[in-house]
Amino acid sequence: MTRRVRGLAATASDQELREWEFERRDLRPDDVAVRITFCGVCHTDLHAWHGEPAYGNVFPLVPGHEFVGVVAAVGDDVSDFAVGDAVAVGNIVDSCGVCDMCIAGHEQFCAEFPTLTYGGVDRHDGQPTLGAYSGEYVATQGFVYHLPDGLDPAGAAPLMCAGITVWEPLEQWGIGPGMKVGVVGLGGLGHLAVKFAAALGAEVDLFTTSPAKADAARHLGAHDVVVSTDDEQMAAARNRYDFIIDTVAVAHDLSGYSMALRFGGTLCLVGALDAMAINPMSLLGRNLTVAGGGGRPGTQRMLEFCGRNGITADVEVLPASAVNEAFDRLARNDVQFRFSLDMAELH
Amino acid sequence: MTRRVRGLAATASDQELREWEFERRDLRPDDVAVRITFCGVCHTDLHAWHGEPAYGNVFPLVPGHEFVGVVAAVGDDVSDFAVGDAVAVGNIVDSCGVCDMCIAGHEQFCAEFPTLTYGGVDRHDGQPTLGAYSGEYVATQGFVYHLPDGLDPAGAAPLMCAGITVWEPLEQWGIGPGMKVGVVGLGGLGHLAVKFAAALGAEVDLFTTSPAKADAARHLGAHDVVVSTDDEQMAAARNRYDFIIDTVAVAHDLSGYSMALRFGGTLCLVGALDAMAINPMSLLGRNLTVAGGGGRPGTQRMLEFCGRNGITADVEVLPASAVNEAFDRLARNDVQFRFSLDMAELH
Repeated sequence: MTRRVRGLAATASDQELREWEFERRDLRPDDVAVRITFCGVCHTDLHAWHGEPAYGNVFPLVPGHEFVGVVAAVGDDVSDFAVGDAVAVGNIVDSCGVCDMCIAGHEQFCAEFPTLTYGGVDRHDGQPTLGAYSGEYVATQGFVYHLPDGLDPAGAAPLMCAGITVWEPLEQWGIGPGMKVGVVGLGGLGHLAVKFAAALGAEVDLFTTSPAKADAARHLGAHDVVVSTDDEQMAAARNRYDFIIDTVAVAHDLSGYSMALRFGGTLCLVGALDAMAINPMSLLGRNLTVAGGGGRPGTQRMLEFCGRNGITADVEVLPASAVNEAFDRLARNDVQFRFSLDMAELH
Repeated sequence: MTRRVRGLAATASDQELREWEFERRDLRPDDVAVRITFCGVCHTDLHAWHGEPAYGNVFPLVPGHEFVGVVAAVGDDVSDFAVGDAVAVGNIVDSCGVCDMCIAGHEQFCAEFPTLTYGGVDRHDGQPTLGAYSGEYVATQGFVYHLPDGLDPAGAAPLMCAGITVWEPLEQWGIGPGMKVGVVGLGGLGHLAVKFAAALGAEVDLFTTSPAKADAARHLGAHDVVVSTDDEQMAAARNRYDFIIDTVAVAHDLSGYSMALRFGGTLCLVGALDAMAINPMSLLGRNLTVAGGGGRPGTQRMLEFCGRNGITADVEVLPASAVNEAFDRLARNDVQFRFSLDMAELH
C-alpha cells in the first residue's frame, strides 16, 4: 500500500517542471511521512534539472531538498515524532550508519555516500529518491528534525540546505566572540552566514562585487563591507580575518581571499564546484577547505540555535505552480536571497 | 672595520658563479660571525640565480641559506655563543621582533617580512644581504642556533632550510604515533619529511612517479610506496591519510592527493610556487595549506629532535669550486637528495 502524492517533475533537461502524480513507499517501521508546507529553491535544483551528473541527473526529476512540514503519519517503531509535529528535512535522508564518519555524526561524508533527498537511490528498496517539490515526503526518522517553535516555516525551509551548509563550518571552526569573519557573497548561503556568524558573536564583514548590497548586509548583521573588485579595499583587508566563508557558486580566483586571512586563518568554500586556480604563495601559512552539507548532530544544533535566536532565511514565497518562474529568475540571479515554494496547491 | 670574506657570486642571471671578495659588516653588539664549513644547495638558489623576483633577484648574488659552521667571533652583548661553538643558520637572519607572528615564534610570517639570508636587505644598515656560499657569515645571535653534538655537519646544513620547511608543518599538525602520513616526492625536502615523520612515530608512505625510488624510501623509514601515476594505486589510497606533505616543486594537479586524505585531513604544500588547479570537490571535508620556512622555536626543537634521533640529510658533498657543476646537475635533477658544498676552499 503505497502513498500517492502530487509533485512537480521534469522529464528531461529541456522540459519545464509539470505536475506529476507518483507513489511514495508505504511507511517502514522507522519512517515518518511529512506533509510538506514549504520547500526552498536551491541552486542545486537548477543544476540537477540541467542534467549535471554531479547533482544526480535522474529523470523524471522531482527536485527539492530543504523543506518543512507537518508529520502526517509515522511507522510502527517511531516514538520521537507524532502526527501533527512540525518538522524539517534536508538534503540527506539516510546513510550507512556504521562507518567512522556516520558514527562521528558527519553523515554527509558517509563512506558509502549518503542517500540524497532526490537524485539518489534508497539503500533498502533500490528505488530512486524523488524530492520535496511535492505534497508529501517519506523519510527515515533519523533524518527528520523537530522544527523549533516560533520560526516562520517558509523562512525555516532553507535552513535545511543553505543554512546547514554554512552552519557546519562556522561551528567546526569555533566561530565566536573575538573572531573576525568574512562572508563572500550575499545570496541564499551568504545571507545566512552573515546572520549566523553575527549571532555567534563574531565581527562579520561582507565581501561583495555589488556595493549596493552594503545596506542589506549591515541590516543582516554585517559590521563592514569590502568591495572585492576594488584593489585598494582588498589591499586594506589583508591579514585581517580568522575565517572567510566563500559562498560564490561560480569559479573565481581565490588568492585575494586567502591573502585577507591572518596567518593560521581558514578560507572555506561552500559554493564552489568548478576547478579553480590558486596561487600557492597566497595560501602560505593559511588554510583552504571545502565544506558541504552537514551531519545530524550539527543540523540539530543549528535548529536549536535558530530557535533561540529567531533566525530564518529571508525568503520570497511563491506558490508551487510558479516553480518554472522561480527557476527562470534564479538562473538570471533575480532573487534577493532565497525562494521558498508554498506547497499547499499540491496537498 | 669590516670583515673581508671570499664567496661565490653571480653578477647576472646568465653568468656562472665565480669567486668574489666582499665585505661583511663589522660585528654589532648582538652579532655572531660564523666560519662556514658546509652550505646546502637549495632549489631556491637556482631560482634566485635565474633572476626570478620572488626569490630576490639582486646581483651580485651570493646564494646559500642553509649552513653550518664554527663561531669565529662574537659581538660585545653575545653571551650564548663562544668562539669555537658549532652552529647552524637558516634562511632567515632577522625579523621585526615585535609583531604578533614574531612574538608567537613564527618569524617566517613577520608582518614586516623577515630578513632573508641573501637577496634581502639588512633592517639596520639597509645593505643587501649576501649568502653563505662564502667563507664567513655575520648574523644577529637570535637567528644563530647551536648545532647538537654528533651530527655530521655536511648533512646537518640542509636541515636549516629543507629540514625546517618540512619539520614546521609536521610539528604544527601534531604528527605522531597512530597517524598515517603521505610524503609526495623524495628529493631534498621529501627524504627529510620521510625521516622526520617516521621518527615522530607515524606510519609514512611515499607518493612518487618513480617506482625505482621504493627501496630508498623504505630505507629512509617509509612503510609503503604509492606510484602516483598508477590510477589503481591512487584509487586504493583514497581516504587513507591524516596528513600529506607535498614537496614537489613544479605545478601539478592536487586532486589525487586531496582525495587520498581522510575527511578532516590536511594536504600541505611545501614545494609549490606556481599557480595550481584544484577541483573543489576533491577538497570536500579536507584541508589544503602551504607552509614555508619556520620560526626560531620550531628550528630549535627540530635541531634538538635531530640530535636525539641522529637525523641529518643524505648529502653528496662537493667542494665550493664545483658550485656550477652542482647547479647544472640540480637543474637536470641529477642529485639523489641534496648537495652540500664544502666551504674549506674559501677560508
